[in-house]
Amino acid sequence: MNKSALQRARASYMPKVPKTLKGIVKIQEGEPTQSVSDQEAIQKLFPNTYGMPIITFVKGTERKTYPPMNVGVILSGGQAPGGHNVIAGLFDGIKSINSQSRLFGFILGPDGLIEHHYMELTGEVIDEYRNTGGFDIIGSGRTKLEDKDQFDKGLVILKQLNISALVIIGGDDSNTNACVLAEYYKQIGAGVQVIGCPKTIDGDLKNEMIETSFGFDTACKVYSEVIGNIQRDCNSSRKYWHFIKLMGRSASHIALECALQVQPNICIISEEVEAKNQSLDDIVQYIADIVAKRAANGNNFGIVLIPEGVIEFIPAMKKLIAELNEYLAKHDNEFKRIKRSHQRDYIIDKLSPENSKIYASLPETVARQLTLERDPHGNVQVSLIETEKLLAEMVGNRLAEMKKTGAYVGKFSTQTHFFGYEGRCAAPSNYDADYCYSLGYTAASLIAEGKTGYMSSVRNTTAPASEWIAGGVPITMMMNLERRHGGLKPVIRKAYVKLDGAPFRTFAANRDDWALNTEYVYPGPIQYFGPTEVCDQPTKTLQIEHEEQAKNSK
Amino acid sequence: MNKSALQRARASYMPKVPKTLKGIVKIQEGEPTQSVSDQEAIQKLFPNTYGMPIITFVKGTERKTYPPMNVGVILSGGQAPGGHNVIAGLFDGIKSINSQSRLFGFILGPDGLIEHHYMELTGEVIDEYRNTGGFDIIGSGRTKLEDKDQFDKGLVILKQLNISALVIIGGDDSNTNACVLAEYYKQIGAGVQVIGCPKTIDGDLKNEMIETSFGFDTACKVYSEVIGNIQRDCNSSRKYWHFIKLMGRSASHIALECALQVQPNICIISEEVEAKNQSLDDIVQYIADIVAKRAANGNNFGIVLIPEGVIEFIPAMKKLIAELNEYLAKHDNEFKRIKRSHQRDYIIDKLSPENSKIYASLPETVARQLTLERDPHGNVQVSLIETEKLLAEMVGNRLAEMKKTGAYVGKFSTQTHFFGYEGRCAAPSNYDADYCYSLGYTAASLIAEGKTGYMSSVRNTTAPASEWIAGGVPITMMMNLERRHGGLKPVIRKAYVKLDGAPFRTFAANRDDWALNTEYVYPGPIQYFGPTEVCDQPTKTLQIEHEEQAKNSK
Repeated sequence: MNKSALQRARASYMPKVPKTLKGIVKIQEGEPTQSVSDQEAIQKLFPNTYGMPIITFVKGTERKTYPPMNVGVILSGGQAPGGHNVIAGLFDGIKSINSQSRLFGFILGPDGLIEHHYMELTGEVIDEYRNTGGFDIIGSGRTKLEDKDQFDKGLVILKQLNISALVIIGGDDSNTNACVLAEYYKQIGAGVQVIGCPKTIDGDLKNEMIETSFGFDTACKVYSEVIGNIQRDCNSSRKYWHFIKLMGRSASHIALECALQVQPNICIISEEVEAKNQSLDDIVQYIADIVAKRAANGNNFGIVLIPEGVIEFIPAMKKLIAELNEYLAKHDNEFKRIKRSHQRDYIIDKLSPENSKIYASLPETVARQLTLERDPHGNVQVSLIETEKLLAEMVGNRLAEMKKTGAYVGKFSTQTHFFGYEGRCAAPSNYDADYCYSLGYTAASLIAEGKTGYMSSVRNTTAPASEWIAGGVPITMMMNLERRHGGLKPVIRKAYVKLDGAPFRTFAANRDDWALNTEYVYPGPIQYFGPTEVCDQPTKTLQIEHEEQAKNSK
Repeated sequence: MNKSALQRARASYMPKVPKTLKGIVKIQEGEPTQSVSDQEAIQKLFPNTYGMPIITFVKGTERKTYPPMNVGVILSGGQAPGGHNVIAGLFDGIKSINSQSRLFGFILGPDGLIEHHYMELTGEVIDEYRNTGGFDIIGSGRTKLEDKDQFDKGLVILKQLNISALVIIGGDDSNTNACVLAEYYKQIGAGVQVIGCPKTIDGDLKNEMIETSFGFDTACKVYSEVIGNIQRDCNSSRKYWHFIKLMGRSASHIALECALQVQPNICIISEEVEAKNQSLDDIVQYIADIVAKRAANGNNFGIVLIPEGVIEFIPAMKKLIAELNEYLAKHDNEFKRIKRSHQRDYIIDKLSPENSKIYASLPETVARQLTLERDPHGNVQVSLIETEKLLAEMVGNRLAEMKKTGAYVGKFSTQTHFFGYEGRCAAPSNYDADYCYSLGYTAASLIAEGKTGYMSSVRNTTAPASEWIAGGVPITMMMNLERRHGGLKPVIRKAYVKLDGAPFRTFAANRDDWALNTEYVYPGPIQYFGPTEVCDQPTKTLQIEHEEQAKNSK
């Protein structure tokens, strides 16, 4: 591998770990736990892994010896910065427990387990990937581990390699499935433990015990770097409104974190749009009003942050899409015979009055996308809609109307951006490098203690790393039942932005000021070698949450 | 101003300067110079500023005293990282020469001079902007300083503020105009010197004496950071071809530098396209062939870098656009009466057979852009074409054809990106921070020595900063006559990528390897505080050029 100067310099970085993980480690078990809701049903589904205690590792005095262990590891789902460090921490952890331990990586995600594609991760391999971004050490995949058949196929190779524990690094769904697998292997007495690690740049795998999912910190810092650069440009040339869409199909944690870091003029939060039952028109008007007010002050420029999934959080759009899906499914052949140039009018004619009005208000390109580009199941592909362009165009149209009545006087030129792939595989920040390494190292200790159905947990991460608290959380504890594909399924409850949470409240308290006054902050690129206040800070979200917790506990 | 942790830490960075600029400075004058061509004509146009010697500053022994000087400064054109440091260097330079010197900034570019909008740049103001990106300290503007009327209006405020020298920070055009202004003020005995500073992220203001324009280093490093991140993602998920367009309307220096930094599978260089008389079809086929070869190896992923201006370098496209402009200008009313859905066929019918064929081969959206969205002069707006999407779509179509004959077997999914605004206002790298500060500091010395019509020059910048060579180059020396708006004008010769230059040859020698084998390099974010091999490296372009010069001079 051809390495950049930074990669070479960064390879020798030794991640900081909780001091309790160094030296002699003692396990401390808490009280039995309950799932967040639907306790009875979840307990029924997980008779062998339900109700286990929370585990904390503390400094011990008595050195125990452990037999060598063969461990397997899987990267599941989308990339997030720090995945390689979880694996490095896991490797170092099992080696420190017994130097004869071995680590095997399954190739390209869960498929590797099912199809028996694997490689041994030796010290030499691991050293190539320490503190690097990406999941390329073994690759990742999106196959869901859900079926008994997959579990049994996997067990064959696990037994063959004498693997006694499997670590699954993934998001909420992957960790849910890790728990199902743990339950199954325990139930059949397979002798294979399963441990999960909380990954997702979206930040939506998060609760009292898992204070953040790894990768979120780095990804938000990369996005904030480039948004900050664009803000500085915007504030220098003073002639464009930049509409910036940020990755995150579901929760708006990324947009909120970036907003807290860069202080843009506008940031839309999907959860608020839904809670306030806002329409697309409401959002457009909200933006247009701010544009008009800034223009009145002579500022014909600004920054708008948009979470990728916002369209699906607009209740009225959800209804429109549902009706479109239903109508087009029933009248597919008829629709296909309509001339391209008449399709729009045809749809406007056929929809219910309410939805028809919304559809008619959409720019032509988006209207076309909503009817033409459907997925193999015939469903509208909302994810293909370029929301940043949609909003820029609709705001432009609205301003043109406002100009006629004199409600707006100014110039409105736009630039649009979408940031996602720029951050998913960035080299991890010190925070993520330390956090991930600690998660992996903790997973090794959970394995050594014979645990299964646990998620590796590292908390108190706004303190210096030496003070972090390492342990394990029973995955069932985070579960509830949710309707998926028509049936109720046990899943880890997804964490959305809480509108009564401190991070959102901080944003909401400042946004009117940020809207009119130009209060941009320029975070700059992630630094690895500088002063700790530059290099080792967690996300604003986490800092604000912890500040509030500290206040409340006083 | 609300500052990020990095901004606060970075504020105290003291840029490194050539040792000859510290302490007692002596001016050394070389032989009289000539313009790069059209010597007689240029001399006639610049009787007062032609033929001046190259200036080098060296260590002196005799301390001279200078009277205080009032200096004006203008930021001209697009933002480039480091502009604030030029101003800081200029400020510190004139203060070190005489502590009573004062600096005035003209607001929002040349307009500030003409309209008499200015502010004094005191130490307090300067300190707020040291080592920061952007041009927001005084703003920039694109008005061209070309007319006697503007010059005279400017002189009024210069005289009023007792300003004896004006520093214009800008690209090739702005520096050309700086020289015209210098000539005029000298001719009328205005008593105002004019000094230029070489700025442009595009890197096309470059010659023997000006080895790079400032901002190019930082911008390329920011682009390479995010391209590297995308490459790591690409190599982890192994399912997308990313088509990445890079800012640079004219020369392809940015694309080439990024390619040298990240080693993508494909990089198009506009100058090569033009030199080889390639068609759009040639480019599409070149990319499609590499996609097919990689697919045959099981690699259905890759990275393509595209310079923003490539369309205008394709000779056949230039012809098509010329015919379209001419035809539509003549038949505007007729065209407007054509139904939207028939416009494409109408155009295909009217163009010459050669251009008609090319037009027909374009995707519908692009064909529409070429006829519908014209600028106020009726010209096709090539810059609005989303070249990255155009190429992705055309390559997809070509691969579909190749699939039929069995020449291609694979999956082809694409993501597109455009990076420009992300880099223009980034905080300067150490290189740009040092280089810009030195350029400003050097400008102060040129002013003290009574020079006008010079560009500040800092050379030998692949060596440690203390060894850099500071001086001045007569702007006329870089000029030739070029046809602009119908007439011959004296302009600084734009520097395109030289196909026989070492940077391009290095790229060309490696590209076939990079195309098939995945040799991605991940440069990571700009570092300010780490080891010098990470923090202080100039661009690959410059390093390769200097290596070759060193070899040739042996």
